[in-house]
Amino acid sequence: MREAWVVGAASNRYGKLAESAREAATRVSLAAIRDAGLEPKAIQHTFVANCFGLTERQAHLGPLLNNGLGIPEVPSVTLESACSSSSAALHEAYVHVAGGFADAALVVGVERLGHLDTMSATGYFAYAADYPFETRNGATFPGLYATLAHAYQAKYPTRPEMFGAIAVKNHANAAHNPHAHFQKEISLETYLASPVVASPLRLYDCCPFSDGAAAVVVAAREAVRSPVTEPLVIRASARAGAVTALQDRGDLTGLPSSRLAAAQAFRQAKLEPKGIDFFEVHDCFTIAEALALEDLGVFPRGTAARESEEGSTARDGKVPVNPSGGLKAKGHPVSATGAGQVVEIFEQVNGRARGREVPRTGTALAHNVGATGGSCSVHIFGRR
Amino acid sequence: MREAWVVGAASNRYGKLAESAREAATRVSLAAIRDAGLEPKAIQHTFVANCFGLTERQAHLGPLLNNGLGIPEVPSVTLESACSSSSAALHEAYVHVAGGFADAALVVGVERLGHLDTMSATGYFAYAADYPFETRNGATFPGLYATLAHAYQAKYPTRPEMFGAIAVKNHANAAHNPHAHFQKEISLETYLASPVVASPLRLYDCCPFSDGAAAVVVAAREAVRSPVTEPLVIRASARAGAVTALQDRGDLTGLPSSRLAAAQAFRQAKLEPKGIDFFEVHDCFTIAEALALEDLGVFPRGTAARESEEGSTARDGKVPVNPSGGLKAKGHPVSATGAGQVVEIFEQVNGRARGREVPRTGTALAHNVGATGGSCSVHIFGRR
Repeated sequence: MREAWVVGAASNRYGKLAESAREAATRVSLAAIRDAGLEPKAIQHTFVANCFGLTERQAHLGPLLNNGLGIPEVPSVTLESACSSSSAALHEAYVHVAGGFADAALVVGVERLGHLDTMSATGYFAYAADYPFETRNGATFPGLYATLAHAYQAKYPTRPEMFGAIAVKNHANAAHNPHAHFQKEISLETYLASPVVASPLRLYDCCPFSDGAAAVVVAAREAVRSPVTEPLVIRASARAGAVTALQDRGDLTGLPSSRLAAAQAFRQAKLEPKGIDFFEVHDCFTIAEALALEDLGVFPRGTAARESEEGSTARDGKVPVNPSGGLKAKGHPVSATGAGQVVEIFEQVNGRARGREVPRTGTALAHNVGATGGSCSVHIFGRR
Repeated sequence: MREAWVVGAASNRYGKLAESAREAATRVSLAAIRDAGLEPKAIQHTFVANCFGLTERQAHLGPLLNNGLGIPEVPSVTLESACSSSSAALHEAYVHVAGGFADAALVVGVERLGHLDTMSATGYFAYAADYPFETRNGATFPGLYATLAHAYQAKYPTRPEMFGAIAVKNHANAAHNPHAHFQKEISLETYLASPVVASPLRLYDCCPFSDGAAAVVVAAREAVRSPVTEPLVIRASARAGAVTALQDRGDLTGLPSSRLAAAQAFRQAKLEPKGIDFFEVHDCFTIAEALALEDLGVFPRGTAARESEEGSTARDGKVPVNPSGGLKAKGHPVSATGAGQVVEIFEQVNGRARGREVPRTGTALAHNVGATGGSCSVHIFGRR
């Protein structure tokens, strides 16, 4: 198995796209390829992550992307794994490159739902849950994650301020991220005064609907003679699944797929949680960041929300988490989110994260969840 | 790189599904796993091909499939490459198994559009074309393939009877296939009397809309101690892309992605077209079968339609093509079609193709096209 590197990365600004998913994906992909110092013809396979292209009346995005890149002959495929689509695509690119099937591959995640009204967008999101058992009975993701939050609060002593601290920290980070949907800080008072969306989740516990696109280039170490960027060495690429419907799980104070993917990733990388310098985790809701940090083994069960309030996860804390601003404030363009986490890690490592730098960038972990954990991907990156 | 085998296969009867895509995929997957003599827990990754699950309000099909199989912890991903989705999924499974990332993987293709009316289904299909340049201006696939047929007829001397012979042959084969949507023969007179759908294509030039599901299990040779079936050795797995919109292509008498994928596949397998005992090719329209056979190098340019009329592609002809009945008569459940072609090859090799046997089954080729050739997959199979 060959060593695979991330050698280029690019993202647009998350928010509302004025162009189609196809156009955004092409633009961002070209930027990532250029960033790697490559020509498009160096790319031997493209992996497009997209969930809701049908709402734009466009399937078969892969060849259209490759047309736009000037490499129509190159094979492509579109991948969907709910909110973890582009980390699933990264895994496929990793397998192709590490396995020797391609020297360089492109991963681009793109989503556009901003042309729909909020109710329609919420409805489409909810198709990623277990439709006949959850969605059809009225559950959408704020409700499902509220259920997880209730379970956590019932088991562990918490206060709203603990979850508020996660939102405040992520907004503070996003204020320095030019890719972020929300580039402004919020106060704890603003958080506490925000309306309840699905008890106990308030408005500022929830990530926004974002459009966006993010791309990374994965290449074999031996195919990159003189990298023009500081590459990320992919030290682990692990994915796992879990029972989808919440009513069928025995325990709701964590996501089984997160724990499993994390265990596999740490085994692959021969690292422990304390060996990771900073994290990008899947905080679609504040409770999700707390659960992620416990599932990843960063903090003991029932302590992550408290640690957040104590500042442990701030950029200058003992374990920086979501320096990008996370899904919460950077935004959550479904299929772009996982690739976007890698863009952040790449920017941190390459000294591009001005104003939101983390102190150490030797190792980093990206954690991306599909739905309420029916799927999860964990990638660990190191330096040459 | 390890040798990868197809060790189990199953399909339902194509037509109109009374169950959801999720239910059909689960049922057929279990049958394929049992066919391989395996337990579901032997499967280390599942690849689900599906294009139009959103019309059933269900994304994230992978974990739901794995829930149903009793292996919720196993990673999964859904793949889309238009009508070549499940051959793209097979390629990913091949890469995982041959590259040593999984010992056994499941590929299931499933599509359900029968709950929509014909106009809606035609519209959804057309999202796989280049929407702003083709679909939005009124083009659907019968019109696009009619354009290819016109180009062929303008360049080569043909008669309607030549294309009729393709339809008659495929219906004759499907009459013996219990998985086929249409299990009845048609006469040349019926073909010639059928209404024009998009000139020059008549009703019987066109494949039907089918629902369906087909699954295969791919395993590493070294992981299969005593196969309970006669495995297919995957001797080549190649994919290619092409300019999507027809108006941007220089030549319409063939599909560039077919030629490219075929060339790569023959190189991988170290074979020539004449070394293949029988073919399953992508005949969404009769013209597509003629183009496929020329793109694959089976017949010289401009001769495939004539060869078909002369009986060369019949089951007892010199080159048996589509013993299953092809998309034309077996049916075309979009994302199931590519996996279904492999099911046919597996059944031929395992002596299950009663009444439609081909004389030699030492090597076989599956050719699966996405849209009008924006994507193409070619797989070549041999015997142990």
